[in-house]
Order: sequence, then structure tokens, then C-alpha cells
Amino acid sequence: MKYDQAVYLVAGGDQRQVHLADLLAVRHTVYAIGFSDDIVFSERVGRLRSPEELPQPADIIVLPVPALASTRTVNTPLYSHALLLERVLECAAEGGLVLGGKTDAVLEKKCSRYGLRCIDYMEREELAVLNAVPTAEGTVQIAMQELPTVLFGQKCLITGFGRIAKVLTHHLLALGMDVTVAARKYSDLAWITVYGAKKELTSRMGEQIDKYDLIINTVPAKLFDHRILSRVHKGCLMIDLASKPGGIDFDAARELGVNTIWALSLPGKVAPISAGQIICDTIHNILTEMEG
Amino acid sequence: MKYDQAVYLVAGGDQRQVHLADLLAVRHTVYAIGFSDDIVFSERVGRLRSPEELPQPADIIVLPVPALASTRTVNTPLYSHALLLERVLECAAEGGLVLGGKTDAVLEKKCSRYGLRCIDYMEREELAVLNAVPTAEGTVQIAMQELPTVLFGQKCLITGFGRIAKVLTHHLLALGMDVTVAARKYSDLAWITVYGAKKELTSRMGEQIDKYDLIINTVPAKLFDHRILSRVHKGCLMIDLASKPGGIDFDAARELGVNTIWALSLPGKVAPISAGQIICDTIHNILTEMEG
Amino acid sequence: MKYDQAVYLVAGGDQRQVHLADLLAVRHTVYAIGFSDDIVFSERVGRLRSPEELPQPADIIVLPVPALASTRTVNTPLYSHALLLERVLECAAEGGLVLGGKTDAVLEKKCSRYGLRCIDYMEREELAVLNAVPTAEGTVQIAMQELPTVLFGQKCLITGFGRIAKVLTHHLLALGMDVTVAARKYSDLAWITVYGAKKELTSRMGEQIDKYDLIINTVPAKLFDHRILSRVHKGCLMIDLASKPGGIDFDAARELGVNTIWALSLPGKVAPISAGQIICDTIHNILTEMEG
Amino acid sequence: MKYDQAVYLVAGGDQRQVHLADLLAVRHTVYAIGFSDDIVFSERVGRLRSPEELPQPADIIVLPVPALASTRTVNTPLYSHALLLERVLECAAEGGLVLGGKTDAVLEKKCSRYGLRCIDYMEREELAVLNAVPTAEGTVQIAMQELPTVLFGQKCLITGFGRIAKVLTHHLLALGMDVTVAARKYSDLAWITVYGAKKELTSRMGEQIDKYDLIINTVPAKLFDHRILSRVHKGCLMIDLASKPGGIDFDAARELGVNTIWALSLPGKVAPISAGQIICDTIHNILTEMEG
Repeated sequence: MKYDQAVYLVAGGDQRQVHLADLLAVRHTVYAIGFSDDIVFSERVGRLRSPEELPQPADIIVLPVPALASTRTVNTPLYSHALLLERVLECAAEGGLVLGGKTDAVLEKKCSRYGLRCIDYMEREELAVLNAVPTAEGTVQIAMQELPTVLFGQKCLITGFGRIAKVLTHHLLALGMDVTVAARKYSDLAWITVYGAKKELTSRMGEQIDKYDLIINTVPAKLFDHRILSRVHKGCLMIDLASKPGGIDFDAARELGVNTIWALSLPGKVAPISAGQIICDTIHNILTEMEG
Repeated sequence: MKYDQAVYLVAGGDQRQVHLADLLAVRHTVYAIGFSDDIVFSERVGRLRSPEELPQPADIIVLPVPALASTRTVNTPLYSHALLLERVLECAAEGGLVLGGKTDAVLEKKCSRYGLRCIDYMEREELAVLNAVPTAEGTVQIAMQELPTVLFGQKCLITGFGRIAKVLTHHLLALGMDVTVAARKYSDLAWITVYGAKKELTSRMGEQIDKYDLIINTVPAKLFDHRILSRVHKGCLMIDLASKPGGIDFDAARELGVNTIWALSLPGKVAPISAGQIICDTIHNILTEMEG
Repeated sequence: MKYDQAVYLVAGGDQRQVHLADLLAVRHTVYAIGFSDDIVFSERVGRLRSPEELPQPADIIVLPVPALASTRTVNTPLYSHALLLERVLECAAEGGLVLGGKTDAVLEKKCSRYGLRCIDYMEREELAVLNAVPTAEGTVQIAMQELPTVLFGQKCLITGFGRIAKVLTHHLLALGMDVTVAARKYSDLAWITVYGAKKELTSRMGEQIDKYDLIINTVPAKLFDHRILSRVHKGCLMIDLASKPGGIDFDAARELGVNTIWALSLPGKVAPISAGQIICDTIHNILTEMEG
Repeated sequence: MKYDQAVYLVAGGDQRQVHLADLLAVRHTVYAIGFSDDIVFSERVGRLRSPEELPQPADIIVLPVPALASTRTVNTPLYSHALLLERVLECAAEGGLVLGGKTDAVLEKKCSRYGLRCIDYMEREELAVLNAVPTAEGTVQIAMQELPTVLFGQKCLITGFGRIAKVLTHHLLALGMDVTVAARKYSDLAWITVYGAKKELTSRMGEQIDKYDLIINTVPAKLFDHRILSRVHKGCLMIDLASKPGGIDFDAARELGVNTIWALSLPGKVAPISAGQIICDTIHNILTEMEG
């Protein structure tokens, strides 16, 4: 089909989805549901109080990140009522598309029951790359807020060298930090050198852990246990960007008085408009490929 | 004289002076006065409750920024009592030195009455250059906190191309902003180009003022009057770094609903430890020059 | 085994291998064969005129890039005689190791006949990453030499966004160029944006091909045919870094008077000492991994 | 007067002036004299064989850099005949303007005799700033050509921190060099730090002079005498950018076998088109100022 003429229904979400709806509405027909009356959209977005108000079937239903609040309800942090998933899916046109963030088996099953295709936009590589920018900026912002020094000239350790670590390394070097990155693979160590940072094997990063003023973990594995935390210097700030269990033993850190911040889902928090823009661009790519 | 063996008295000030005292105490004999008991110094700093407690005359008296709270008292924001300037000057050794920030005629006159030489460390060029770093970082921090977008890819206008503007231009370009700098002199416009930013004559910056997401003023002149402010776009953030009258008509901005922040004296606020370090380095330079 | 005490035989090659032998000899026992008498090595390297002169079996035989000149001879550009592969392999200790660049089935077969393990160091990811630096610098050097303008402010198109393109993009942006990168994958386009360059779909790069002053191809596919070359502007310089068939129709370019340079194997040409260092580091990694 | 309608006569010079004539001719009436027939200009430039061929008086006469070859002749490196200064000045309209590079008392006196105002565009600050870019790029090019290593990771010393040194520091840091800058003033040392380089007092730079792989002098004073040159390491490359006597004792360097290059007037040599553009922009600024 031609997605240029598609009808969109943005259902639930936070400020990212508000901005996403505004952006989609510049060129498409867009309706929004699952937001309180005081949330402001552009005039081009059709506000709905209930799914019944939708004047035409939606070709594309856009769900937030994560898509669901429970197995039966859409995630609607800006709405005081529950928004039932089934009521939303019933709005879809035949053969419609459901785009959501961090979708799960429950959602996919329900979509297929309605004959709808479900795609997780958070699994797109380009979104992960672009989201590294707000995550890195948010981390810089936290470091600037928390440290009583400038970043310039201070010593920083970053663990891991994935997308976020790469952008962070660039930003912190550009701001004049003395950056060391710890990684395990020789090819990562080569890239770290090429980026202009100092390199360190993860297995040996503990040896000089006391010299860092800022430590940023991006590895989803418990790299920082009691033993290594006990050698971090008093004024050091630790920021953990790793999801789920995180990379720091937070209990040990608390006990030892190490200043730690667990910063998750930064794009939606520090730069919701940019995060909405990134989702919008990614949806555009998905649709272009499908038309392809 | 040989300043290596000098006795220092740090009198009054904020966290910058606390850190300055700690740094000086690494290699010198240092006493501190004009701070509440709950303010923490390193063990090497001798804490005084009153000038009488000073066990030996001070070769160098270090006053804060600004040096005085009134014509008769030292500036002591971390102290609940008044600290009389004369009592402090009486602590000086014969031919001693008084180092202060933003000293004035009153202070200089009193110093000369006591036969003391008075030097304003805030007038040193190297301090102004180094202070541009915490000022620029503080400005970046404010912009990151206030804007609902990433800085990356957004459009920024900086007015003026002095020290702070130079460091800001570098930082914002490094973070991926689209930076335009407005200046009046052709040589400044040449430097702006060489720095990699876009250049604009100050007289013509109004023409496209509506395209910027962030405007940072560094010029101590009313560049932003009602007429130009009325054309700034709604989501734009304006940060004024210019002292005294500032460069923005804040009344007009309020009336027009333009988001403005007047950010003064950032080094002491966002990075007191670095600001103390910079003062320490500058004092070291002053003394090295005097030793010849 | 412990490779710290290993005996090395560096057989054939260009200045890279000369420097590699010198570097290895800082900590190991190293012999060299297949170099003219006027080639200067450090004093620690044992020069051999013939394989028979080797006083002890070699644990590690290091061959050049490419390893062979023919199916029977080692590649010896700095030697006026032929160096027979079999004579070299006979120098190996039992269970020895043969390290070469761009090894092939012929070499591997012969090694296995002698019970020797053969490893191609040019296939190591970290070597490819580190070699991107001399390749990028060499490309910058060529562009500076050939263009009658500064790079600063000129428009450059890079095709592809692999390792070399990434380092080139960084370097050329840092030197003030206006860089566009053409790629096909959305994730590459995202990275291009994050690197700070402009992005373009490869399929659409022809549309504005006339605006570039410098075009650098890194894609091993004929992207630049007669049609597209005919629209490149007269003063434009084209550098092709792609191996084998190259990415430019050189006949068409010649006919059209487009200034093209096919720059292959830059590391060994523009920075042999660095290239030797990179091979040395990579061999160190290979041996460390084998020691476990 | 209105310089938009001015008639220009470009008299003598090298490729810079050729390109300058081409650029001026885009919007103005331009004649050129003092170039061989095989030198190619754009079609819009009126070629003259002798001053008599000029169809109308020239409002602006543009002389090259330096302006004169002798007290009586214009500097015409691309012309096999002599071009007499008086013949050129006779072409000027009443009250006309003579713009030249490195003009001297002789030229100024002659101009005033003809009632012409003489301005030296090489003395403009913005030209000096913009020329720092081709000078820095030319220096990078030389270093890349001469060194058998990449610049990346190598150690560089720059002496002085004027315009050229500032741009060089930025470029070399961006290319991954380990850059130290030696200066005398504390404010320069502060700027060096802010630029991200290591700082060193000029008086102490000799102490570790043996660690540098590349030394670039920008100071017009004999900083590098026999004593200090004798400690420079064998593989080090020295580039002297200082005019007149230069900063290196070249006799001593030759005797000691130190590899030195005295690189003067780089803009016209490595990037004549850019150098012509810079002169064109500067002339535009001069005329804009005169129009008030």
C-alpha cells in the first residue's frame, strides 16, 4: 500500500508520542487517544476521547515504549484512565499495521488474532544508533550537574564500547576529558585507540580504578562488585547506563558511600522531543522498506 | 621574598575559597577564617575563630570574589558573623600581600594604609581564559536541562566572540550543534569561520533570528530589544551571560513569553572546585612573577 | 608454549617488515632473510644471507603482505634474489607457526605439509581497524597534494561507511570539510548523522554529484560509471580506495578528463613504520590468544 | 564612491592573482595585465598585452604579494617581460585606489605622487587569520609527506601560540597527535590548555626536546640553536614557519643531521585558489569599510 495516504492512530505514551503525533500530522491524517485533556497537541492532530470517535479505520496504530502497561492495557502515563488494548486494535483497518516499542509475545498474539502485523520499532538498528545521542547527552548532563568540577581535564572510565559508549567517548573527549575505555575484544580496543581514547582490558581495569573522577558503565554485567567499588575514590561519580540488573552492586556502593546514579531510558526523559523525532524517522524507514 | 615558605590566611568566600585553601595547604602553611564550623577543610588547614588566634603574621592574605561585602567587611557567604576587613588586614606581616577578586578603591586604600600591596587576581588574563571553561560547561548544562531536545542538530546563535564565546563555540560544535556566531569585526568573523561555525554580522543577526533553538548572549550591550525578541520562536531558549545590565530586555522577554535565563558567575556555582583550582594556579603565577 | 622466548624469522617484505623485525627484536630473538645488504636493520636483528645460516630453528616465521610472490617464492621486494618458500619453511621448529599477510591456499597447504600452523594476520579485525588510520591519513595527504585549494570549507563525498570511511569522515570534518557520506543501510545513515556528516542514499547520490570538490570511493563496486562521471565538475578530484576492480570506470574518467587517483595499499606506502607497528601489535594479540 | 560599479585592473602576480581576477570578474569589470598568454583566466576577464589597451581608467588597481619586483617594476612571476609600475599607475582613474600585498615606502610614495591611495591588504587582521588555514594545512601536508609514520599518536612540539599555531594545534590534535605547545605568557599557556594541548614554558622546552617526532616552529627568534638541536632525536622532523631569519640554526641542523624544512609563504604554494579567495574577501571588506 501507499503509506503516504495512511491514517494513523497514536495510542498512549508520554511526551515522545505527543511529539511523534505532531510530527506525523505534518503530512498525514493522525488521531490520538490515551492522553489527558491538558496535554497539548498541534491543531492538526484529531483528539479522541474514546475509540468509537475515530471517524475512519486506522491503517497504522502507533503504540508507545513500552507498548503495554499490562496484558490487557496500553501504556498511558499521561492518561488517568485505562486504555484497553482490544479497543484500540479494533480501530485498525483490515491488514493494518501495529507499531510499538518493546512489544512482547502477548501483543504480537493479539495483533495476529486481529489479522494485524506487529513491528517493534525499538529493535531497529538505526533507532538504537540515533538514541545513543540523547543517552550520551543525558549522561553528560548528569555528570555536569553532579560533579563540583568541570568535566574538562578530569579522568573518566567508560566500560564497554557499544553505540552509547562510542558517542559518549566522542562527546567527553570533545569536552576535554581524559577518557579511558575498558573493553574485552582486541577489535574494540583498536577502535578505542582510533577514537582517541586510552584503552584498557576490562580484566585489568580494576588496577587503577582509584584514579577516575567519573565512571560510566554501559555493560549489562556486574562489573563493579564490592571489591572493586571499595577502591573507587571518594569524590568519584558512577553512572550506570546498563538496563535490568545493571553493572554496579548498588547495595555495596551504598554501604561504601560511593556516589552512584542508575540512569535508564534517558532519551524519553531528557529529550522527549528528539526521542519522538527519532521514532518518527524510524517509522518512516519501516514504511519505506515495506513499500519498497 | 621566597613565597614557598609564605604563611597564607584565606579570609572569607564560598566553596571556591574552601577548595583554594585545601590546595594551598598541600605545600604551604595555611589558615582560614570567615567560615562556619560545619564547612569542611582538609586537615592541613588551620581553622581560626578570630584573627587573634593566628599564631604568626600572614605573608599573604587571600580574599574572595568579590573581596568585600561592604566597605568595612569581608565577603563571607559561608559565615553567619561579620568579618571586619581591618581585623583581617592587621594579621598581615610587614610588607605582606593582599590578593582578592574584584577588589575596589576602598580595599586598595585600606591596604596601602597598612603598607600592604593589593592585587586583583580576577584581572589576570589567564584566569579569565581558564574561567571560560566552567562558564561554557555551565552554559551547556543549563541548555541541556532546559531544552526538551538534544543539543545535537539544533540551531544555536552566539553573540560576541570573546573568550567564553570561543570555548562555547568549540563545545557546541563538538556536541553536534549547528552554530552561528554574530560579531562586528572582520577579524572576529574570520576566526568564527576558522573555528568551523557560521558567521553573521551583528547588525544583520535579526534577519533570521526566528530560526534558532538556542541563543546565547555574551555581549554586555542591549542587543535583544522588544523588536528582535518578538521574532524569536516560541520554543527557543535564551541564555544571557553578560554581566551588569545584561544583553536582553528581560521585561520585554517576560511580556513576550520568551524563555530567558540570566546566568552569572557560573564558575563558582557549577564547578566551585575547578574555580578554586583556577584561582590557586593564578596566585601561583602572580607570586612566580613577583619572585622574578 | 610461551611466546616470550620464541625465536622469530622475518622472511621477505618491504619497509613494514624491516620495522616489524626491529620492533620484535626489542624483546625477542629475531633473524631476517630476504633483504638486500643495504637495507638497514637495528643491531639486534640477526641478518641471514641464506636459510642455512639460521643458528636455531624458528618458532615463528613471519611472512610479508602478500606472503608469496609466486606459488614457490616468498614476496621479497627489497631483495634481488628469489627466496624459496620451502627453504624458509624448513627453518621452522617442530609445531612452529607461520604468520603471513593475505595468505592463500597454496601457502596453507605447504605449511600443513611441514606440520606448521598458518595464520593470516591481515584477516584480524583489529589490524583492519588500525590500518584505517594510515589509509585515511594517506588519503588526506593525496587530497592536500592534488587540490589547489585548502580542504577547509570544500565539499567532499565519501561512498560507503566501513572502517576507512569512518576514520576519513572524522578527519575531514575535523579539518573543516563539508562532508556528505553515501550509504545504503538505514543504520549506516544513522551513524553518518551521529558522526556529524550529511547523509545521502547511494541510490540518490548522483543527483547532486556536480557539487563536490573531492569524491572518495571506498565501495568495491562500480558506483561511478560514465553517466555519473560525466556530471562530476571539472576541478573535482576523485580518489578510489576500493581494491580489485575499483569503484570508478577509469576508462570513462580518462575520456571525460576527470582527475582520478587509484590509491591502494596506502599504509605500507605512506607510513611503513606505523604499518609495521600495527602488524607487530596484531602478532602480539594472536600469540596472547594462543597462550590462552 | 560605489565600488560595485568599479573597474578593476589586476596587474601581475602568481596563481593567486589569476584566481582573484576570476573571482572579481563574477560581479565586476576586470582587466588583467602582466601574465603570459598561456595563463588561463575566466572568459569574463579582459586580457591586456599593454597598459594602453585598457579601454577605461581603472578605479582599483590590484597588485600582487609582494607588490613590487624592484623599485620600478611590478612583481610578475607569470610573465616573461617587465611590467613598469609607472605604466600601471597611469591606468588609474582620478582618486583611484591601489591595493597590494606587502607594499613598501617606494610604492606608497609613487602612488601619492599620482594622487592614488595605497592600501596593503596583507596587513589586514582577517587576512592573517584566514591565511592561517592554508598555512596549517600546508604544514600538515609536509609532515605527512616527510614522516614514515602516521601523525596519529606521534608527539609534536609547536613553539609559539599565534594564529598559525592555534589552527595547527587544532588540526594536529584532531588528527590524533600528542601535541605540546611552548609559550612564554601565562595567558597563552591558559589558552593552550583550553585548546586541549599540553603546555610548556618556552624556557623549559629543551628539557624533553628528545621525545618529539615533529617540531614546528612559529616564533621569529632563534629558539633552536646548536645545543638544543643536538638533543633532538634522529627521526624527528623539524618544520620552520618563521619568516626572515627563521627560528632554527640551519647550519647547525645540517651539521647534526637534523631533518629540517623551512616552509615559507605556504598559502600561495599549496592552495593558490584559496589564497586568491582570501585576498578577494579581504578586498571586499576594505571596500565595504571605505563605503562606510
